Amino acid sequence: MKRNVLIIGAGGVASVVAHKCAQNNAALGDIHIASRTLGKCQAIVESVHAKGNLQRPGTLKAHALDARDVQATADLIRSTNSEIVVNAGSAFINMSVMSACIATGAAYIDTAIHEEPDRICEQPPWYANYEWRRRDECAKAGVTAVLGIGFDPGVVNAYARLAKDEYFDSIDSIDIIDTNAGSHDRYFATNFDPEINFREFTGTVWSWQDRQWTPNKMFEVKKNWDLPVVGNQTTYLTGHDELHSLSALMDVPNIRFWMGFSDHYINVFTVLNKLGLLSEKPVSLPGGGEVVPLQVVKAVLPDPSSLAPSYRGYTCIGDLVKGTKHGKPREAFVYNICDHAACYREVGSQAISYTAGVPAAAAAMLIANGTWDVRRMVNVEELPPLPLLGLMERMGLSTRVTDEHGDRSVFADVETAEPESQFADLGGRAVLA
Amino acid sequence: MKRNVLIIGAGGVASVVAHKCAQNNAALGDIHIASRTLGKCQAIVESVHAKGNLQRPGTLKAHALDARDVQATADLIRSTNSEIVVNAGSAFINMSVMSACIATGAAYIDTAIHEEPDRICEQPPWYANYEWRRRDECAKAGVTAVLGIGFDPGVVNAYARLAKDEYFDSIDSIDIIDTNAGSHDRYFATNFDPEINFREFTGTVWSWQDRQWTPNKMFEVKKNWDLPVVGNQTTYLTGHDELHSLSALMDVPNIRFWMGFSDHYINVFTVLNKLGLLSEKPVSLPGGGEVVPLQVVKAVLPDPSSLAPSYRGYTCIGDLVKGTKHGKPREAFVYNICDHAACYREVGSQAISYTAGVPAAAAAMLIANGTWDVRRMVNVEELPPLPLLGLMERMGLSTRVTDEHGDRSVFADVETAEPESQFADLGGRAVLA
Repeated sequence: MKRNVLIIGAGGVASVVAHKCAQNNAALGDIHIASRTLGKCQAIVESVHAKGNLQRPGTLKAHALDARDVQATADLIRSTNSEIVVNAGSAFINMSVMSACIATGAAYIDTAIHEEPDRICEQPPWYANYEWRRRDECAKAGVTAVLGIGFDPGVVNAYARLAKDEYFDSIDSIDIIDTNAGSHDRYFATNFDPEINFREFTGTVWSWQDRQWTPNKMFEVKKNWDLPVVGNQTTYLTGHDELHSLSALMDVPNIRFWMGFSDHYINVFTVLNKLGLLSEKPVSLPGGGEVVPLQVVKAVLPDPSSLAPSYRGYTCIGDLVKGTKHGKPREAFVYNICDHAACYREVGSQAISYTAGVPAAAAAMLIANGTWDVRRMVNVEELPPLPLLGLMERMGLSTRVTDEHGDRSVFADVETAEPESQFADLGGRAVLA
Repeated sequence: MKRNVLIIGAGGVASVVAHKCAQNNAALGDIHIASRTLGKCQAIVESVHAKGNLQRPGTLKAHALDARDVQATADLIRSTNSEIVVNAGSAFINMSVMSACIATGAAYIDTAIHEEPDRICEQPPWYANYEWRRRDECAKAGVTAVLGIGFDPGVVNAYARLAKDEYFDSIDSIDIIDTNAGSHDRYFATNFDPEINFREFTGTVWSWQDRQWTPNKMFEVKKNWDLPVVGNQTTYLTGHDELHSLSALMDVPNIRFWMGFSDHYINVFTVLNKLGLLSEKPVSLPGGGEVVPLQVVKAVLPDPSSLAPSYRGYTCIGDLVKGTKHGKPREAFVYNICDHAACYREVGSQAISYTAGVPAAAAAMLIANGTWDVRRMVNVEELPPLPLLGLMERMGLSTRVTDEHGDRSVFADVETAEPESQFADLGGRAVLA
């Protein structure tokens, strides 16, 4: 049993993690939020109180922290008695936060792969560049490190594992499809940090095809899908974190990631990219001095968290899996639908942040009660998926499957320990029908 | 008779002015080029020599100058014995260069209206905001100041005057049409300084309609024209310098300016503008510090002068004039066609710079020989147009007219003093058939 959670970061995802942890502080204990800007953490604390999302009276506190400073981070972990750290900050701080966890023995959770600020779309293998080099270190220290437990990566990895465990004898392909059919009232905005968002698309797109890494250009390979609730969606082959771990950890010859983009998004992205405005390399200004163009684009774009009030519509994210069961070919789409407006009502965020933040909070709870407290570094597909999916069902994110037998909750097919039996007193929004 | 020319600026237009003045240094005497960056001026000097464009051995010299410094500018005018100053620099320096001319008695020539860096698309009346306030000062000092003698403003003002003098008894409307059917090998570029270029389109579009200033938004009013050589062109109602002087100095109820834009240009402009990247107001960067977005856009866009080698195709700029002659309604289009590749061969510049620079050099020659040395401040429509148009015919820019009698050189209709009789020894490219 581990108690007390330190959330690092104060953006959209961190805010959702804070709300969901607060809704479950009976199981989690004290909740601390730390980022470089204290005011942003304080604003999250206030929003938790404003929404009445603290399950029962308890500690909910904001801290200023530069998480690139390992010593300062370790000091804060110790002074707050935090046994679980949820890193929901920039992808640039994974390694330093992990070091602080190893130093203190706290469990480590993150939602995206580590990146170095000056390197864009590194060559595969991605996790192996940074995280996996520290597997032994974690095992030796007995530190639980759950990598990439947002929605994608994260829940989609659990979906892949669920498909393997429950729906297939062998899998030929997994197509992870991430679409957002929501709309907001701004001309253009990214749904999370523009710096991280655009970096995903400016380099080579790597996918796992015929058991090999295959390079493409961004927006080169397009595919339309007819999806539940959101209908026809246009997506493009995109590089993404989970492709690396799934390709290494699951015996599947084809694993691809498809992200939905509107023509408008592609147009704005293309203009900015072609002009060199998405570059992370400094340019000289006419009047002297230097500036990184991508930082300027970030400065003029709306803060992603400001989009939530006007966001309407749904996200649909899932795994289309093809393979065989009992010798017969079959396919199944395991997916979640999330409603932007419902998320905003509950925690003040849109569905993109919500779908990334809820799984991280759920992971904290599964570490707290021991289910996922494996005392080593793992990716989500290495863990039993049903405790996560069952818990998420009670925390606002349902899992459905559609195949030749129709569209239904996965819990119509599989038996799981009832979340109630794991957590006597569970807070938040239930989606179970 | 005035001698010796100081050219201020080192951009595309200044370079053409330098080449054309050098081609006529028999009439003009010494040629000096000054700008903040000495190296740019030296590069122009070298390109004049490389093209063999110095008509006869003589002074052609580069200088470093901050033209916002009136004293330094006056000192340079005196030390170079320059009696004619061609201001082909940024539109922000008109007033300081004019002060230096008034202080020294040198003639003043510019190609665009004065602007203050922090004011975009000021309300009409434009010339009256800055230049015309100094008419008395010029007259008192006996200083010749020819305002706005590029192509537009400049030659199009002379076309309007020519139409009034030669082709019409009364004029109802002048539509100035500026199209560039050329193309280059870059994704996107402005044809002159991006800072000035975009500023033209980010504010209210003012036009002179029914003898009143009429406001529109940019890209709100679209018009297609079938033009000589360049064919069908899409243009948009745009605010432009010459509308103000023509509306004040000629008795014409409707004067509009139409600029050609491709869908691609409008798309890039719209994306940048909507995102706030064309703003001249500083924004705060995520990592601290401030930057003016427009300066960053300028930093990443190609230097307009770098486009010239790959530019192909033609510009077509002219005045479509409607009115009556001998009691009958008629219309005539007075225009020029300019070939990007031919300009590049002759002076190393594309046609946009060429059409703006040649008239300024011609004006210097007309001041040098006394024809336009009026010892007061004038706009081009106040001067006799035929000496200019006749001289330009020998300097690379021909004037044609198309009306109910067909398409022909204006010199098929009008008699003018032969340029040869004005300048015994004229250099450069002749376009007379």
